Amino acid sequence: MTTDTTSNRRTQGRREFAAVMTCPAPRDTSPAIADGLIDFVFAEIWTRPGLTRRERRFITLSCAADADAEQPIVDHVYAALNSGDITITEMREAVLHFAVYAGWPKASRFNGIVDQQWERVNRERGQRVPPPEPLLPLTTPNDPQARLARGEQCFMEVNCLPYVPDRDNPYQGAGILNFVFGEMWPRPGLGMKERRLITVACVAFQDAPYPILSHVYAALKSRDLTFDEMDEFALHFAAYCGWPKASHLDQMIAEQKARVLEEWQVEDRNTVQE
Amino acid sequence: MTTDTTSNRRTQGRREFAAVMTCPAPRDTSPAIADGLIDFVFAEIWTRPGLTRRERRFITLSCAADADAEQPIVDHVYAALNSGDITITEMREAVLHFAVYAGWPKASRFNGIVDQQWERVNRERGQRVPPPEPLLPLTTPNDPQARLARGEQCFMEVNCLPYVPDRDNPYQGAGILNFVFGEMWPRPGLGMKERRLITVACVAFQDAPYPILSHVYAALKSRDLTFDEMDEFALHFAAYCGWPKASHLDQMIAEQKARVLEEWQVEDRNTVQE
Amino acid sequence: MTTDTTSNRRTQGRREFAAVMTCPAPRDTSPAIADGLIDFVFAEIWTRPGLTRRERRFITLSCAADADAEQPIVDHVYAALNSGDITITEMREAVLHFAVYAGWPKASRFNGIVDQQWERVNRERGQRVPPPEPLLPLTTPNDPQARLARGEQCFMEVNCLPYVPDRDNPYQGAGILNFVFGEMWPRPGLGMKERRLITVACVAFQDAPYPILSHVYAALKSRDLTFDEMDEFALHFAAYCGWPKASHLDQMIAEQKARVLEEWQVEDRNTVQE
Repeated sequence: MTTDTTSNRRTQGRREFAAVMTCPAPRDTSPAIADGLIDFVFAEIWTRPGLTRRERRFITLSCAADADAEQPIVDHVYAALNSGDITITEMREAVLHFAVYAGWPKASRFNGIVDQQWERVNRERGQRVPPPEPLLPLTTPNDPQARLARGEQCFMEVNCLPYVPDRDNPYQGAGILNFVFGEMWPRPGLGMKERRLITVACVAFQDAPYPILSHVYAALKSRDLTFDEMDEFALHFAAYCGWPKASHLDQMIAEQKARVLEEWQVEDRNTVQE
Repeated sequence: MTTDTTSNRRTQGRREFAAVMTCPAPRDTSPAIADGLIDFVFAEIWTRPGLTRRERRFITLSCAADADAEQPIVDHVYAALNSGDITITEMREAVLHFAVYAGWPKASRFNGIVDQQWERVNRERGQRVPPPEPLLPLTTPNDPQARLARGEQCFMEVNCLPYVPDRDNPYQGAGILNFVFGEMWPRPGLGMKERRLITVACVAFQDAPYPILSHVYAALKSRDLTFDEMDEFALHFAAYCGWPKASHLDQMIAEQKARVLEEWQVEDRNTVQE
Repeated sequence: MTTDTTSNRRTQGRREFAAVMTCPAPRDTSPAIADGLIDFVFAEIWTRPGLTRRERRFITLSCAADADAEQPIVDHVYAALNSGDITITEMREAVLHFAVYAGWPKASRFNGIVDQQWERVNRERGQRVPPPEPLLPLTTPNDPQARLARGEQCFMEVNCLPYVPDRDNPYQGAGILNFVFGEMWPRPGLGMKERRLITVACVAFQDAPYPILSHVYAALKSRDLTFDEMDEFALHFAAYCGWPKASHLDQMIAEQKARVLEEWQVEDRNTVQE
């Protein structure tokens, strides 16, 4: 590579870093930072079309919180709030959604960092931390049966499936139907697309076989993410979670795209015949 | 949800938090803490029958140490020791067992936190840290062949299998037979049920295909965990490790319950015929 | 075990600890440290032939950085640099390679620790931190098509495969071919065997199905790692990442050894017939 081209790419990477992170790029010449993070992740991934900067933030935040790396979580939470790309209400709701898909220990750290960085953003602006927006009253039904029924309805809608799991074991009944789909997914405060981004990042990180398949399928089938957005997701995820898990995700995406396309073709034929 | 019901649930969650964590619940109104951790994890999971509070602690500690989240490990180690639910001898033995199934880097952090929190619990009570109970003399045979033979015996008992792996590769011979089953599992200081809880949490976190299958099978087949306890395990695990891995575990449990039931039916028939 | 044998093993473990970690072994009597880390990991794994101490360091560093455990990363980075087993240039290159396979958040922490420990090693010797060796000029082609073509060539060489992935999706084109194989793998500063050790550790940690298979296969097929070295890898990896993932890796190794052997036999027959 000529010095000119290297230099242009470095310059573009440093400019993008400053825009995304809301602070100057580091003057670090180590291979990981200069040749990897600046020249590739910022110069060649964050600058791509296909997903907005705000959407890329939800993927990045999920990967950083999954990876338990203190400073990157701090930096990305700060940048997301400081840029105004994600509001504090959305961020707090994202932590709850993340807690469900990544577990409470990781979410607990994430949540503490959100508090600190929100205080920092306000302090730097000479502002007091504003009181949190009330999310209550929520619409969760009182009656346990009604809550389960709502959980079943939401389970089918979010997963794009015509059936629900049995209520008769603790994991599925008290967990999945009662809380995850009976309470958490229907909450206001975060859009469906953002919930999809967090969920797919977490299931791809955990890479248990069925959840990754079912959430990639549902994100595509629901049209909450387009096929091209999902492909772009795999690239962004690769940078922040590593290529092995991204490779698996990429394969799942290819399979689920084929499945969804076939289902849409059948649905189209049926619509025409009606 | 009416304010009354929300309020009752919040009150119950805060009361359970205080009992489990041995400190007051946080006055935090963020969705993750208020609506997730207090209203769901403490109000609706920790309060359930099916596993004792002590048993839930071994699952929680394993998940928190797997997740590398400093503060949750600190809080749960402190709470387990401060409540008296787990003795310091059991806790130290649990760290060794965890080290084997989660690797030394994670165990090293866990071990350091145990030291600090044990010191803190004693300091708060105005006590000196008592000297550790000697676990020696252990019963590990001197002779390498005798140690391998014991490892093979223990391997078959713990895994409920009629065969052993070949000794002829480093992983199986020097690792599995010589240390994991030749020394670690037969140690005193921790009961078999507790070892099962830690092991299943770690293999479910790591979710490599065969270990999760074999340890869920063995926990059920040995009757160290009942079918209902294992179902309850999946729910508790979901909260502390996230739903994707728990979903995979739940599926493994269903398959292994069917396998174990079938084997028990064959064994019963054979017993009758004798 | 008699006190004599225990005592010999403890002594050997403490001596090996001091040699590997370049500091005295801890006077800790907890089961995890005394019976696990000293008596097993140091006395019985690090002392084995089959992989050099330097090679074991690349596996250990990758596992510790994957596990996000602050102190173990600090200790092993310090020991690797302080012993002179790994130069600072190799270490920095290893961080970039690790970043690609484990994601940037984990690499960012690893990279920060390398800076701190390199400063510490120099400070302890009363030296100034020397300026970094320039790795530029790199040989990455300017032209995007030429870069992709080089990526395709490198992809086939590293993976020992006769085909390349399609360029037509972001993950494969902009990621795998353009950066991972078009830029990262061909970099100087780290040998091919060392890159294999880091890669296999990371794919075994992440355990996505295809990457673990393909990188174990390629490490063996390329003869960069012998069959015996790969078996030894599985044992060392078990200690630092836990037995469940190591068990899966061990199974993959057995399968890929069989596949590679068969391919070599066919190649030998073809060579004879020519």
